[in-house]
Amino acid sequence: MVQGDPPMINWPAFRGGYVNLGGVVSMSGGTANTTSLLRVMNERAVFAEIFRLGRVSRPELAQATGLSKPTISVALADLERAKLVRPVGLRTGNAGRAALLYEVRPQAGWVLAVDIGRAYVRLALADLVGEIVARRDEPSRAESYDEVLSQLSKIAGELTAEAGIARGDITLSVFGTPGIHDKETGVLRLAPNLPGWEQPGAAERLADVTGSPYVVENDVDLAALGEGAYGLGQGISHFVYVSIGTGIGMGVVIDGKLYRGSRGAAGEISYLPVGGGDPLAGRGRGMFESVASADGVVAAAARLGLKAATAKDVFEAARSGDESAAEVVAAEADHIAHALAGVTAVLDPELVVLGGGIGAQAGDLLIEPVSGRLASLVALSPPRIESSTLEPDTVLLGALAFGLTTARDLVFERAVAATPFG
Amino acid sequence: MVQGDPPMINWPAFRGGYVNLGGVVSMSGGTANTTSLLRVMNERAVFAEIFRLGRVSRPELAQATGLSKPTISVALADLERAKLVRPVGLRTGNAGRAALLYEVRPQAGWVLAVDIGRAYVRLALADLVGEIVARRDEPSRAESYDEVLSQLSKIAGELTAEAGIARGDITLSVFGTPGIHDKETGVLRLAPNLPGWEQPGAAERLADVTGSPYVVENDVDLAALGEGAYGLGQGISHFVYVSIGTGIGMGVVIDGKLYRGSRGAAGEISYLPVGGGDPLAGRGRGMFESVASADGVVAAAARLGLKAATAKDVFEAARSGDESAAEVVAAEADHIAHALAGVTAVLDPELVVLGGGIGAQAGDLLIEPVSGRLASLVALSPPRIESSTLEPDTVLLGALAFGLTTARDLVFERAVAATPFG
Repeated sequence: MVQGDPPMINWPAFRGGYVNLGGVVSMSGGTANTTSLLRVMNERAVFAEIFRLGRVSRPELAQATGLSKPTISVALADLERAKLVRPVGLRTGNAGRAALLYEVRPQAGWVLAVDIGRAYVRLALADLVGEIVARRDEPSRAESYDEVLSQLSKIAGELTAEAGIARGDITLSVFGTPGIHDKETGVLRLAPNLPGWEQPGAAERLADVTGSPYVVENDVDLAALGEGAYGLGQGISHFVYVSIGTGIGMGVVIDGKLYRGSRGAAGEISYLPVGGGDPLAGRGRGMFESVASADGVVAAAARLGLKAATAKDVFEAARSGDESAAEVVAAEADHIAHALAGVTAVLDPELVVLGGGIGAQAGDLLIEPVSGRLASLVALSPPRIESSTLEPDTVLLGALAFGLTTARDLVFERAVAATPFG
Repeated sequence: MVQGDPPMINWPAFRGGYVNLGGVVSMSGGTANTTSLLRVMNERAVFAEIFRLGRVSRPELAQATGLSKPTISVALADLERAKLVRPVGLRTGNAGRAALLYEVRPQAGWVLAVDIGRAYVRLALADLVGEIVARRDEPSRAESYDEVLSQLSKIAGELTAEAGIARGDITLSVFGTPGIHDKETGVLRLAPNLPGWEQPGAAERLADVTGSPYVVENDVDLAALGEGAYGLGQGISHFVYVSIGTGIGMGVVIDGKLYRGSRGAAGEISYLPVGGGDPLAGRGRGMFESVASADGVVAAAARLGLKAATAKDVFEAARSGDESAAEVVAAEADHIAHALAGVTAVLDPELVVLGGGIGAQAGDLLIEPVSGRLASLVALSPPRIESSTLEPDTVLLGALAFGLTTARDLVFERAVAATPFG
């Protein structure tokens, strides 16, 4: 599973600050001696492996972690006492003695995943093993920041009620939004499609939605994590997810981890100098985005005298054999190929996943010409290009994947703080 | 210090294969019990810290590693018995008991760093603490592959003789060359400036130069490591080194480590679609390189009626107030800004180090206009841009830095294999 970097988490109880869940165990109070530190590290590793493997036996855990069976037994006893794992019966059907299996206790934690898009909000509430117990998609009230907040809050209340838990039981909420969340100021930058979200402290008000610790992440970055966890990026070390729709953006996965850049602006390819001419004087939209996004496609069609209300109409017309529409599609493929030439020259990814409205729905029209054009622009053979199979849930699934991994660490930390192991 | 990924190393004794020095300890023979595995891991950590910190006391090592003082004492005794570290006297001048200091034994390993350029070959022989004990720069005989090999072999012989060691004493040789070394076929791709190097097996013949284990790395990638270890990239997590000279290339450092891409082609920005028009039909050189490299600058000057034999002449003329030369410089800055706009959109680096002949020597003319133009092309403020202070030794120093870290692991592995600790 692709994992994000250790996230900075907003705790409602500590509104001003952030808790960094790095690799180091935060022992509650004072110094740790080597033995108990090792024990906590071992138990963290065992918990992570159970989380990763699902139902698993003691010998399998010993093999997966390299730890001895007695160490595994101690860890399992501690984890079971902390209500993080539970025995789940015997494995039958194998030769030899039946093995007792353990699994993560699903109710040990809850994740609320939220995709805040311009057109839709999508929410899913899942238990700690990732089973979605309640979800909702609604047209977004994104014209007003306050309206979205109350919409999200209402849905969160409904979902927790459906699941039979309190809002306070949510271990972590993960919000995917356009733009870059500046963790120091709480401001969301480069999110022109969400009015009101660029004001100071806007992201912090998301605390009101759930009352739980929460993370705000760029939606396209989350989508890349979604592809890594559940989609085409599974098992691929270096890949990119390129979203082309109302806006344009890219999520970069390097060594199986999300790469955000020095200011969280990695993958802001809407600003690639592609498409001829200089960027619009007004800014707010990059050069590549202004020609290749849905608006750009509609505008290109209009210049050729083709009346189309949406990019989807243009692609439909092309499929029906309209020559002007075909010309627009060819130009779109050319723009995308030039952008991907830049991406390929810099990153040499193994795979490009196309997502977003255009990327996911017009793959049949775009992938072949994009690949062909790209081959003439890059040093080696072009990377594999495929359309996402997760749309329109890619962001939501990425928020879920990211939230599950982080919640796993959170519940472990809490258990250690509550009843120090060792 | 910036470190490369675990490298694949060519061992002359195993010509066909490669040894991966990953993070896992390769215990000699059979399985390891947890205790001895931990002990080796601890001693590896102690050795790495001494390597990093230089002369260091037992309490300092305990603090740096988090290990207990008795564990440190056992590790030091083992490392000293293996001739990897040595006591080096007492620290005086502090209050309290004088502390016995330890350091890496310089003669515990040797690294030969080699920069194979089109114009020059540069070699340095250093001991395990990184002191260069012998070095040589010579005009390259790069017209012929065989000539270069014998030239390198001769110099390597002279350097080891100067240092009073045998070639077989070299722990690791690191060769920096243009192009991408395909580790499966041994072929060097995209290295048009080194005739003969693109033939199958060419890189393997480098074994004859030193008789030691060796690594072949892209020269610009090594230069990025050099900047990270000794130059402007010190302490910076995400930065790029952009070489602009005879050729154009980029080394990418992410999270303090070299990022190579899925096929080693990350940073091949000579192929960025910058500079107008399509790439040359003949290929071999990318679109950006064809306009912005030294040849591109000379060609642009010629189109404006400026007679200049080299790019250096063009920049000199610009400094003297020649208007045509100034126009060429402005165009060059514009090309570079567009390339960096692509790099910034994808990677969001904190720092861009300009190197190579043009990047390092014409920074006074280029950095300001490049930054200004870049500001109009990117989403946030442009990254800091500076000229390398290490040229022309950046590749050599990168080979050294990379070699030292790798040699440190190699001598440790050998010591463990020879006299298993614990």
